[in-house]
Amino acid sequence: MSARTARNAKTLARKYYAGTEVYEAETLKIFTQRWLYVGRVSSLPEPGSYFLRDFDSESVIVLRDHREEVRAHHNVCRHRGTRLISEPEGQLAKSIQCMYHAWTYSLDGSLIGAPFMDQVESFCTEDYPLKAVAVALWEGCIFINLAADPEPFDEAFAPLIGKFTRWRLADLDIAHRITYEIAANWKLVFQNYSECYHCPSLHPVLNRLTPFRNSANDLEEGPILGGPMRMSIEGGSMTMTGQRCAPPLGEVSGDDLNSVQYYTVFPNLLLSLHPDYVLIHRIERLATDRSRIICDWLFHPNATADPDFDPSGAIEFWNMTNKQDWEVSELAQRGISSLAYEPGPYSELESMIAAWDREYLSVLEREPE
Amino acid sequence: MSARTARNAKTLARKYYAGTEVYEAETLKIFTQRWLYVGRVSSLPEPGSYFLRDFDSESVIVLRDHREEVRAHHNVCRHRGTRLISEPEGQLAKSIQCMYHAWTYSLDGSLIGAPFMDQVESFCTEDYPLKAVAVALWEGCIFINLAADPEPFDEAFAPLIGKFTRWRLADLDIAHRITYEIAANWKLVFQNYSECYHCPSLHPVLNRLTPFRNSANDLEEGPILGGPMRMSIEGGSMTMTGQRCAPPLGEVSGDDLNSVQYYTVFPNLLLSLHPDYVLIHRIERLATDRSRIICDWLFHPNATADPDFDPSGAIEFWNMTNKQDWEVSELAQRGISSLAYEPGPYSELESMIAAWDREYLSVLEREPE
Amino acid sequence: MSARTARNAKTLARKYYAGTEVYEAETLKIFTQRWLYVGRVSSLPEPGSYFLRDFDSESVIVLRDHREEVRAHHNVCRHRGTRLISEPEGQLAKSIQCMYHAWTYSLDGSLIGAPFMDQVESFCTEDYPLKAVAVALWEGCIFINLAADPEPFDEAFAPLIGKFTRWRLADLDIAHRITYEIAANWKLVFQNYSECYHCPSLHPVLNRLTPFRNSANDLEEGPILGGPMRMSIEGGSMTMTGQRCAPPLGEVSGDDLNSVQYYTVFPNLLLSLHPDYVLIHRIERLATDRSRIICDWLFHPNATADPDFDPSGAIEFWNMTNKQDWEVSELAQRGISSLAYEPGPYSELESMIAAWDREYLSVLEREPE
Repeated sequence: MSARTARNAKTLARKYYAGTEVYEAETLKIFTQRWLYVGRVSSLPEPGSYFLRDFDSESVIVLRDHREEVRAHHNVCRHRGTRLISEPEGQLAKSIQCMYHAWTYSLDGSLIGAPFMDQVESFCTEDYPLKAVAVALWEGCIFINLAADPEPFDEAFAPLIGKFTRWRLADLDIAHRITYEIAANWKLVFQNYSECYHCPSLHPVLNRLTPFRNSANDLEEGPILGGPMRMSIEGGSMTMTGQRCAPPLGEVSGDDLNSVQYYTVFPNLLLSLHPDYVLIHRIERLATDRSRIICDWLFHPNATADPDFDPSGAIEFWNMTNKQDWEVSELAQRGISSLAYEPGPYSELESMIAAWDREYLSVLEREPE
Repeated sequence: MSARTARNAKTLARKYYAGTEVYEAETLKIFTQRWLYVGRVSSLPEPGSYFLRDFDSESVIVLRDHREEVRAHHNVCRHRGTRLISEPEGQLAKSIQCMYHAWTYSLDGSLIGAPFMDQVESFCTEDYPLKAVAVALWEGCIFINLAADPEPFDEAFAPLIGKFTRWRLADLDIAHRITYEIAANWKLVFQNYSECYHCPSLHPVLNRLTPFRNSANDLEEGPILGGPMRMSIEGGSMTMTGQRCAPPLGEVSGDDLNSVQYYTVFPNLLLSLHPDYVLIHRIERLATDRSRIICDWLFHPNATADPDFDPSGAIEFWNMTNKQDWEVSELAQRGISSLAYEPGPYSELESMIAAWDREYLSVLEREPE
Repeated sequence: MSARTARNAKTLARKYYAGTEVYEAETLKIFTQRWLYVGRVSSLPEPGSYFLRDFDSESVIVLRDHREEVRAHHNVCRHRGTRLISEPEGQLAKSIQCMYHAWTYSLDGSLIGAPFMDQVESFCTEDYPLKAVAVALWEGCIFINLAADPEPFDEAFAPLIGKFTRWRLADLDIAHRITYEIAANWKLVFQNYSECYHCPSLHPVLNRLTPFRNSANDLEEGPILGGPMRMSIEGGSMTMTGQRCAPPLGEVSGDDLNSVQYYTVFPNLLLSLHPDYVLIHRIERLATDRSRIICDWLFHPNATADPDFDPSGAIEFWNMTNKQDWEVSELAQRGISSLAYEPGPYSELESMIAAWDREYLSVLEREPE
């Protein structure tokens, strides 16, 4: 681990948090080019299981097809563009049928029915499958990529590969979900998560469990940033009491039993690995000044099956901490929107934000100012 | 009648349904240049009767003046621009008075009172009449045109002249009105109305009364498009039972007793002539993705005066069908808004949409893409 | 006093009331350059008393510091831009602390605490005070100026200096406040206030107390415009009964006992001095077609301390008159938004609007059209 330094970096300029120019550039360079976390394989239990994910005007159907493969299709009929599915999640029968003119697609996206189109001379069903969206699976997590020719997932997110094997993430189920909508730019959520300089003033309970200086970083540059933070209670966890609420996950042992691992995965995932559970924040950019955050608490099915299982201490702890973070992120949004705002200096405790900003600007192909 | 063909046309590009550029071009080329249906002469029973019609920021007063003439004026005082009338319809006394400084206009638009303006040397009341809007009457229907020098109505809508005389449209009254507001571009309403390819999947009740292949078209190019559709019940009508709910209109006889006539009148009127009643859809463009549809059921006063008159079968039938159409139009709007949407192929059953699109692009002075 | 003439001027063009171009120009040339009335010194009774004022995205803290000085600071932390204070008014302790990372500022704006920033080599607290906003006091009124180098208040508003001394404005307290939000451009509020041509038709009660021809103007060009208006009841006031509801203010005597003084102070204050009380309208521009008006009734503390004090006649009178003015201003906004609107001729009774428009265009650096 290197000595922590923010290298005299300053916060990003106002334009990254206000106005439409950067928002549109982010759409082009980030949200239609990078791998995006969309959910868990366990949310697609059988062939035909699906959920929708929206990105601005885009709607993507993520489903398990009849060969058990996880696939993603644009939710747009190839005939007259009609949205095919409106319910955010559910179970499909063997196919997807447009309610307008009954064009029908198999779960793998092939057009298998188009009434009367055989009368159109030049028409050929092979030319009109649902438009496919690239999919990658990692440790039970589903990622999609809206680019025509996406960078391979294993290259884009190389530091993730094999890094958290001992938590056996793929085995976990979502035990609880809370969805938040906040009046702040999505980047403020990442920047807030990337430092504990604010913990003494904003999170007194958290700061007792993990005093803010206890953090270390093992990924300090690139799309994945973060590292472990030592807990003050040996064998504890991040809960209201500081005690674990389930047995350790997978092969978690040694130092990992006394730490929580915090990582940002650019551009829409926060990964918080505790000894006994995993917290996933999925961040949706809704507007320059509005974001949705879907927060999932993941436990091992053996733990949730235990009649004495009680995750409330973990849920309450992070719900409280989340709300503290969202409140201050909204205040940051409002202040940064002022013409009087100018970039301020990062402390050395904010070196991970400086690294995150560098990655962001690099992907956006902008120079720091 | 020619052989039906969509000539391998495809649906319009995304930009016609999203963003502001096309919306503004439509304002300039269509909604301030073409004849627009605004309502029925029978809604202006006596001198001083008026209704307002809004088009974006424009408000037009349509009234019957003291010489019984139907006129239209901009709803803008010539002094300081104050909106003169706010109530959407009503009965004026002999004049229109601005509530701000009491400038007063006669029903024909002349400025007849402007307190203290005689002290302004250069002022002359003749210079400040209400700004006039062109009016044309056709079969009891009122059309206006916001252009400074509009194309004569009889030339613009030549195919309409004399075409429906036997229905005696001018004699009819509005027996029922339902207003809908939908989250879809106005063009999707026209395109939906222009084909019955969707009838088997979307309108099972309608499709029993008029099987989708029963349609014929006698106007296949230009601002008025459509034709008759033969009903499966002889002497029936489009109602929940398939039976007429009033005697045949005017001189309707022969084939017309067994048909319903469907026409689109560019850019804001749908005309559906049944043997026993007439349905009028007036479409208001509210935003790129929002429209209002005012649907009127017109009957002959002799029918409505009958103590046994019951139009509920006609009202319920079209209200049900309308709602099915609006739902799928909203799905089309959402899907077309996706960047993944690209124009799809029309079937031969959609040849009238292809013709409507051609007319639209021609008026908008755009090339098909 | 000169002969009243509007010099054949016409109303402003549509673009000044619709669209975003002029709105943004006003931000640059007017609202971030000119002195703006923000409130009364009496609203800041002791050190630490503050209120916030918003201008679009800007938020300004107006406070009394520990040396009793009235100051204004941008409500933006110099670290990461967080908004410091959210409550619109209140009482601060000895300092302003950012809730995010506990950066702390004294009431005079100096940065007095910035945890761990001493570890950042180049950091110096003197470089990061709260950004100051210029403040001027006049007769108990607080004005701010967001410009970097504002024109001196006494030069900008020279006609105000000493003009109203005999009312002893600084002694008065706010006895009542009503806040209105209206769907009209802020300029329409000024233009409405600047003439009594509308009084016979719109304000019958007011017009009995001050017949519309009774007005005279002693400031006819520049940022301050207006003059006295003689009341029809000697020794009366503008109330529901026409009688005063408090003894005359300060040294008010002679003609001033029989007059009400109406002045517009560009760009956000209307000043109405009655013999017995003062009415202040503060106008907030919220959008091209939306304004907020904060209306305060100011009385002398001796009057309000009287057990028989009853200001209801003054409050009801102006609340009624305000509402009449707001209604017609909203109608003006709607009519002017029409493309059919074109500038109309001012009467000679509207000479003060013509002067106000000239000042407005001059500050905006536009030519009349």
